[in-house]
Amino acid sequence: MSKKNILYAQSGGVTPVINATACGVIETARQNRQRIGKVLAGKDGIIGILNEQLIDTSKERKADIAALRHTPGGAFGSCRYKLKSIEESRAEYERLIEVFRAHNVGYFFYNGGGDSADTAYKVSRIGDTLGFPVQCIGIPKTIDNDLPITDNCPGFGSVAKYVAVSIMEASMDVASMASSSTKVFILEVMGRHAGWIAAAGGLAQREKGDPPHIILFPEVPLDEKAFLAKVDRAVKNRGYCSIVVSEGLKDKQGRFLADTGTRDAFGHAQLGGVAPVVAGLVKSHLGYKYHWAVSDYLQRSARHVAAKTDVEQAYAVGVAAVQFALAGKSGVMPIIERTSDQPYRWRVGEAKLSAVANREKKMPRKFISADGFGITAAARRYLGPLIRGEDYPPYDRHGLPKYVILKNQTVATKLPPFSN
Amino acid sequence: MSKKNILYAQSGGVTPVINATACGVIETARQNRQRIGKVLAGKDGIIGILNEQLIDTSKERKADIAALRHTPGGAFGSCRYKLKSIEESRAEYERLIEVFRAHNVGYFFYNGGGDSADTAYKVSRIGDTLGFPVQCIGIPKTIDNDLPITDNCPGFGSVAKYVAVSIMEASMDVASMASSSTKVFILEVMGRHAGWIAAAGGLAQREKGDPPHIILFPEVPLDEKAFLAKVDRAVKNRGYCSIVVSEGLKDKQGRFLADTGTRDAFGHAQLGGVAPVVAGLVKSHLGYKYHWAVSDYLQRSARHVAAKTDVEQAYAVGVAAVQFALAGKSGVMPIIERTSDQPYRWRVGEAKLSAVANREKKMPRKFISADGFGITAAARRYLGPLIRGEDYPPYDRHGLPKYVILKNQTVATKLPPFSN
Repeated sequence: MSKKNILYAQSGGVTPVINATACGVIETARQNRQRIGKVLAGKDGIIGILNEQLIDTSKERKADIAALRHTPGGAFGSCRYKLKSIEESRAEYERLIEVFRAHNVGYFFYNGGGDSADTAYKVSRIGDTLGFPVQCIGIPKTIDNDLPITDNCPGFGSVAKYVAVSIMEASMDVASMASSSTKVFILEVMGRHAGWIAAAGGLAQREKGDPPHIILFPEVPLDEKAFLAKVDRAVKNRGYCSIVVSEGLKDKQGRFLADTGTRDAFGHAQLGGVAPVVAGLVKSHLGYKYHWAVSDYLQRSARHVAAKTDVEQAYAVGVAAVQFALAGKSGVMPIIERTSDQPYRWRVGEAKLSAVANREKKMPRKFISADGFGITAAARRYLGPLIRGEDYPPYDRHGLPKYVILKNQTVATKLPPFSN
Repeated sequence: MSKKNILYAQSGGVTPVINATACGVIETARQNRQRIGKVLAGKDGIIGILNEQLIDTSKERKADIAALRHTPGGAFGSCRYKLKSIEESRAEYERLIEVFRAHNVGYFFYNGGGDSADTAYKVSRIGDTLGFPVQCIGIPKTIDNDLPITDNCPGFGSVAKYVAVSIMEASMDVASMASSSTKVFILEVMGRHAGWIAAAGGLAQREKGDPPHIILFPEVPLDEKAFLAKVDRAVKNRGYCSIVVSEGLKDKQGRFLADTGTRDAFGHAQLGGVAPVVAGLVKSHLGYKYHWAVSDYLQRSARHVAAKTDVEQAYAVGVAAVQFALAGKSGVMPIIERTSDQPYRWRVGEAKLSAVANREKKMPRKFISADGFGITAAARRYLGPLIRGEDYPPYDRHGLPKYVILKNQTVATKLPPFSN
């Protein structure tokens, strides 16, 4: 067969800009029709590939593909599903190759985090063994910003911008009312193991004393006494205290604070977030009136306040994946390389999947201030450029964003159902 | 004395656009320098007036006053403080008049909800009695949308837009992942007594079956069985269920659900919001994986996604207050009159404060669907125009909104301290 198809799949938690990557892949593939067949997409990620549910993106209108650039969520569906080692899950790997063969797939693009890079890497190795070599390319995506080698991960910058803008706005609200009402406000953000997202809240602080006054990181076990003293000081000096807390905040025994006692009406643990637990600490020790917010999925779907830098990078890694494919590469991932801090400049580079797979990038300790409650100048230098620029979705006449929902027609199956 | 000063004060919970009203007042007063003195502003609302803490807005640069139009929070501070009846709090009313007299205040503008209209009304009556007549004008503001006579309240439209956009975005996220992950998402929004804000979430639903699939109103006591059946149906038919719940949701005994059992690590009630309680119901009866968000202050400070209609109306009622003052009016409030649904047209009208004071506008039952879990076409007709149009704040080169913080210099005091 001459032209091979691309099979693209989204993996893990979605981001406000993962569809911008899909847009980059599909638009670039369409510009190279003479060398590339169709772009197929796994319905609900790799689960759809295993089940031979492959979406034919060639059925989508050009304008709808273009609209992916400003549409949040995962347009083809995503899943949390990690393939085990080849030894443990050989049948699954063989099935993938079988599906690739049946649908003339020459290029497998897996758009996800560290787990996905690992999967793409393994698939790249087993193709040869099974007599159907396929070019496997990982494409980075994660709001957690925890992939190694790449300077940052597409998806993170927009969440960072959402958090910085939100804590800035909510703090202005609290500041207005603090003399007679709420004195402590707590915003809970994502980040179970690393404080990248919480750190981004610190970008709202432009001058010393500005909110947020306290950031609670998963990297820093909560020192209750120091925390409460700092809250009290902020309230006494500034009139109020604005706090960003990471969902992964732990106590000194290493237990998640969100796990240590919140019970719902039925006695179930772990319903609450960490924000109400922190609020409880403040209330019981200091007595201040508090409010708290849990942004949860809002933060990772808020395409309406995406960072332009992030959208551009998400699109660029999609474009690069196709270029890598055309250049005959496999077992690689396009990454973001920062070539200059000031002015901020970046380009797309290349990393080996074997180097990216299953390695987590921690937030450097030097990004956290000495007292553990804020970010440093080094953190600002790194984080600052990632939230720059605005990239609004178009809105319709009803005042709502024009997000696209694709037709998502699957191609006819050619294989017997998969049973593992 | 010839030209009298305006004394403007913000009251109660702030909104994303209350400063647009302040902007309308100050810019219009400055255009009428030949007839109006300064615009003074109560620091932290009426508490600042009682304490003779009056901000001199003439010290602010023109560009900073203009920036109020796109700045959330309450630029001069606000407070929750309700004056009692004249009989009970005569000293306070007398103090207000004393402050007015000392600072040559001929016009008192009180920007708030029903309580503030009541206060402005009472002050308008006592001025004559105490020999210092002052023109009192209420200016509507409340995200609760519960003022009578006016078609809607400045502040509500932007919160409505935030909620509609947010539930649309989060639902796209959930839809992408539902096959292998979260199946039920719950967004808690404000509205303790009326479901206006929750109803706005329904605007995200463009076609039957679109999210949000369920809205839980404070007006409709929770029918657990019907609710759970509807959640289950949505998950079975659509793959997931997206829910907007009002913080004021009650059970059949009339108790707030948020009150009925949530306990923090210290055994304190009422830390949790209602969203985790509803999540607990879903989990314990249906077993679905859930996520929940509590938008809290984010929703009422999110100027970054304000509705253009709302910003324009907030500004217009500020302009109208000055025009009313110049026309010699007192005891009145500018209101929004809807002159046409389609196309939506509005103008500023006038209502008597006596008619507005202490009367709450409930959401009509005909806005809630027969099953109690959604909104009707009538609700869409009313709500739709209020979220229309975008009005972005300018952003700086760091990627953050350019919100202004005023100098807020107070004028020299002339009176002995107030002790009540």
